[in-house]
Amino acid sequence: MDDPREIRHAIRQGNFRRHTAGVAPGYVQGNVCILPREYAEEFRLFCERNPKPCPLLAMSAPGDPRLPELGADIDIRIDVPRYRVFRDGTLVEEVTDLRDLWRADLVTFVLGCSFSFEEALMAAGLPLRYVEQGRNVSMYRTSIDCASAGRFRGKLVVSMRPFKAADAIRAIEITARYPRAHGAPVHIGRPDLIGIGDLATPWAGDPTEVREDELPVFWACGITPQSVVLDAKPSLCITHAPGHMLVTDLENAALAQE
Amino acid sequence: MDDPREIRHAIRQGNFRRHTAGVAPGYVQGNVCILPREYAEEFRLFCERNPKPCPLLAMSAPGDPRLPELGADIDIRIDVPRYRVFRDGTLVEEVTDLRDLWRADLVTFVLGCSFSFEEALMAAGLPLRYVEQGRNVSMYRTSIDCASAGRFRGKLVVSMRPFKAADAIRAIEITARYPRAHGAPVHIGRPDLIGIGDLATPWAGDPTEVREDELPVFWACGITPQSVVLDAKPSLCITHAPGHMLVTDLENAALAQE
Repeated sequence: MDDPREIRHAIRQGNFRRHTAGVAPGYVQGNVCILPREYAEEFRLFCERNPKPCPLLAMSAPGDPRLPELGADIDIRIDVPRYRVFRDGTLVEEVTDLRDLWRADLVTFVLGCSFSFEEALMAAGLPLRYVEQGRNVSMYRTSIDCASAGRFRGKLVVSMRPFKAADAIRAIEITARYPRAHGAPVHIGRPDLIGIGDLATPWAGDPTEVREDELPVFWACGITPQSVVLDAKPSLCITHAPGHMLVTDLENAALAQE
Repeated sequence: MDDPREIRHAIRQGNFRRHTAGVAPGYVQGNVCILPREYAEEFRLFCERNPKPCPLLAMSAPGDPRLPELGADIDIRIDVPRYRVFRDGTLVEEVTDLRDLWRADLVTFVLGCSFSFEEALMAAGLPLRYVEQGRNVSMYRTSIDCASAGRFRGKLVVSMRPFKAADAIRAIEITARYPRAHGAPVHIGRPDLIGIGDLATPWAGDPTEVREDELPVFWACGITPQSVVLDAKPSLCITHAPGHMLVTDLENAALAQE
């Protein structure tokens, strides 16, 4: 399925309930975080202060399920294949429709995702080992503090992709052009310098082999805001389920800076 | 002295015979290589095939000492503070004026220089240790083959600057915008992977300390073409003396890609 409108239509019909990795190539997918209005301004500020982990693509008006900047017909209550519902920071259920849970005070945030820059890396011929091996990217919690905003504070989470040095340099050049999809890496080389004890035991995702002639390269990860928000234990927080993103009408190419 | 025209005027008058590092901030300085016409097309092709070590800024017509793209009044015979004259690949003399040596078949090449990107690095607050310590940059001959062109073939020479990982990433982002001043680095991290045995004993320049939490970052170096040309033992080759560059009217900012 190549058209984002078709995919969202299938999701609404209950005909698409799986991961969105690889669907609608060329179109931006977004991390979703829905919060009550009383947390919205603080979270917006957190995103503004931490643009690498939290590149804000769109923020809705309270109670409004539409996101016209990302797609004329988007209804955030029914357009994501699977949602996670957290109350006071604890996962209480996974659902496929938010209409019963919707409230007039809910504000939707959509954040850029590494799928956009990974497409550019692959187009440039740079191999992504975790994709080739059909695994999930390795993620680590670092010792790097995010800039805090009100109740939102915590450590930066990163994703890691190994590259030979010349490819790592090209990957930095390419991803620097995608500030709305996490941008350039935050670290390269020794994991211990950012508080990562053992690359073989990621905090989330699968381990990824780093070969003898490769450097681990670390990008700010879109899991960071979810980790930070849940630590703040908001009364309600709704996110996409891992890998089940919002597929938008925005083109990846439109995110690239020349 | 801040104005490139003033500096060239002083050079012509014999009042400026020193290194050009730090003079005319904001203006491009160039590596100079003058060859007989019979080598010119091969050398032009070598530059085209090796844009990182050999970013060609200008090439003159045979016998014409002017370079109008780089400055309306430039006369390459008298506008460089010190020249080196090589015959059959051997240094035979250093001179400060080429008028007696000039011939109708000589072609001038001017190549971009790392001063342009170093200015951008320092403007971004990235420290250059060798500058702070008043030394020369460390240079190494690598095991990386340049793309050959006719009689011109040889190994890539690199310069090395140490940075902490986050600064190394920013340095890559910044220098990638200066393809006409060597561009992004060619290597980062382990020197042995590009045939460098010991960082403490550079092939040229001074040693630079690499601290425990730093990565060595390697850029293609403008000495490469000189090394390659002299290996080819042309009947005549005239270059600038190390550090005694051609100061042009071109602004560094004009070299930057957005």
